[in-house]
Amino acid sequence: MKKHNFSAGPCILPQTVFKEASEAILNFNNSGLSILEISHRSKDFVSVMDEAQKLSLELLGLEGKGYKALFLQGGASTQFIMTAYNLLQNKAAYLNTGTWSTKAIKEAKLFGEIDEVASSADKNFNYIPKGYSIPSDADYFHCTSNNTIFGTQMKEFPNSPIPLVCDMSSDIFSRKLDFSKFDLIYAGAQKNMGPAGTTLVIVKESILGKVQRQIPSMLDYQVHIKKDSMFNTPSVYAVYVSMLTLRWLKKLGGIEAIEKINNKKAETIYNEIDRNPLFKGYAEKEDRSIMNATFTLTEPKLEDLFNDLWKAAGINGLNGHRSVGGYRASMYNALPLESVEILVTVMKELETQA
Amino acid sequence: MKKHNFSAGPCILPQTVFKEASEAILNFNNSGLSILEISHRSKDFVSVMDEAQKLSLELLGLEGKGYKALFLQGGASTQFIMTAYNLLQNKAAYLNTGTWSTKAIKEAKLFGEIDEVASSADKNFNYIPKGYSIPSDADYFHCTSNNTIFGTQMKEFPNSPIPLVCDMSSDIFSRKLDFSKFDLIYAGAQKNMGPAGTTLVIVKESILGKVQRQIPSMLDYQVHIKKDSMFNTPSVYAVYVSMLTLRWLKKLGGIEAIEKINNKKAETIYNEIDRNPLFKGYAEKEDRSIMNATFTLTEPKLEDLFNDLWKAAGINGLNGHRSVGGYRASMYNALPLESVEILVTVMKELETQA
Repeated sequence: MKKHNFSAGPCILPQTVFKEASEAILNFNNSGLSILEISHRSKDFVSVMDEAQKLSLELLGLEGKGYKALFLQGGASTQFIMTAYNLLQNKAAYLNTGTWSTKAIKEAKLFGEIDEVASSADKNFNYIPKGYSIPSDADYFHCTSNNTIFGTQMKEFPNSPIPLVCDMSSDIFSRKLDFSKFDLIYAGAQKNMGPAGTTLVIVKESILGKVQRQIPSMLDYQVHIKKDSMFNTPSVYAVYVSMLTLRWLKKLGGIEAIEKINNKKAETIYNEIDRNPLFKGYAEKEDRSIMNATFTLTEPKLEDLFNDLWKAAGINGLNGHRSVGGYRASMYNALPLESVEILVTVMKELETQA
Repeated sequence: MKKHNFSAGPCILPQTVFKEASEAILNFNNSGLSILEISHRSKDFVSVMDEAQKLSLELLGLEGKGYKALFLQGGASTQFIMTAYNLLQNKAAYLNTGTWSTKAIKEAKLFGEIDEVASSADKNFNYIPKGYSIPSDADYFHCTSNNTIFGTQMKEFPNSPIPLVCDMSSDIFSRKLDFSKFDLIYAGAQKNMGPAGTTLVIVKESILGKVQRQIPSMLDYQVHIKKDSMFNTPSVYAVYVSMLTLRWLKKLGGIEAIEKINNKKAETIYNEIDRNPLFKGYAEKEDRSIMNATFTLTEPKLEDLFNDLWKAAGINGLNGHRSVGGYRASMYNALPLESVEILVTVMKELETQA
């Protein structure tokens, strides 16, 4: 039976990527060797890393603009530390839009003063704060572009007077933005880019080297830049599968092409959430994420029936995060529109059966 | 043509592991989903993580002895920082046996005073220092059990009056030791345990929580212990393949069984290095590694001929590290004895043709 995987991450990747990724475990580049057993210093893997870095910058429109792309380890949680270690001398400004922003703030506090410019904690993060101002005397401004758990997404980004740092873990490569507004972007791979195990960092070199503290090598962006993400053994396979996924995206037409599909998927599910009296959206409409649609049942007694229906339809990973409850349909780049249509059919079916 | 992969790491893994690892990319546990697209919080993956942790302790004989096994990210290079962050209050003692020890010392110096108890830098690390004493007023003693680059290996470990910390990246699970002598063992997976992308940490819980500094969450062993290696999304696939490799080792008879094979492989190559007048071993005989045999040609003019011969035999990854030159035959757990025998045949062939 065909599966429809709405998992919040790690999540679905393109089927052609799975196929190639599976073959490379047995015979990579027709070398007779597995990609898992070759040296990360081999010509074949260095070429994978180069291509992954190049494709990242190219797809974001950042080639030749003073940015470097790095494939590191440790997820966004390690970036919460690295951003502060490398950039926070005295004070930094943070926008708090959810669980991940809150964690980023907590870690950064070990390195300096944090000015939380605004927060949507008052309504359990179901909206994106607006109208805040960014202090020009802070070292940088940090925000989270998409909040996986709450299903909210920043639609506009401020013109920041200080370096703009953004955690784009859950919506990078999903929509056109002027990425050159950002000075540092980081993203765990396991949503739109690849499997768990590697983290993309896009950094404008000119913002580095300004803090006084000594930075341990593995936490120092300049060390990784100098070694082209090969200061130590990278997460070879995760980088390889990310590269395959970026290749797939480029072939599809890049971010512009995928954004149209993503908008169509989001429109399809939100239309049904708004139409169907049995469902209620969690996030404020204007801040709704095109990646993660969060919603609840208006009649909790229908829970078992709804769960039976979507499971029977081959749908996977629809349960909401415990911080919100209800349901979450994660619709990352590789999720086909067809899967969203199946989910909508199931939502209509519930209305018929209820 | 059959390949004989002597790569220094990432390196050969068991062929049965590659097969299963390739299948799981397309259909994991008969779920119809790829292991790359499932949630790390899913029952299926939690069970993989549990089994990997349990097998690690079981194979080392450390179950029920107050140790925890963690699968983290960032390689040994991140452990150089984490060990110091978590354990170094005032002073730590380090044994310097090569490139990796030197790097570990460099990172630890950011956190406190380092007492380098002994070093073999005077002879480009071709031996293991002995007869040093460990200061009882230091917070811990750190050593590197096997030096991949130089081909040396510690055969005995000191009875340390302070916590004993060991980087076993390149020989963990390869030989019987009294592992309960150690308080913290860490190892990048990409030699005897799995692919690049995850790092095993075995830590005795009682040594933790004693430093005064605040530790960022991702660098805090206690945080990872509390969350069973799931504080954030782990490197799912690398942990899975490590688990498969540990299962393979257990089925084979555990460390005791593999040690016999490893000793036989090492004996085979070192006998030829000592017998064949065209080759010279790099490391002092008593400190020779059973994992990495380093050697040079006695007649440099034979280099091209030798290279042609081993490449023609399907041998891969035999070039030595630039710090030593010559050749390095890495013979990790999954390398069959047959591959070493082929290499020896090639070495004899050189003698005939020279």
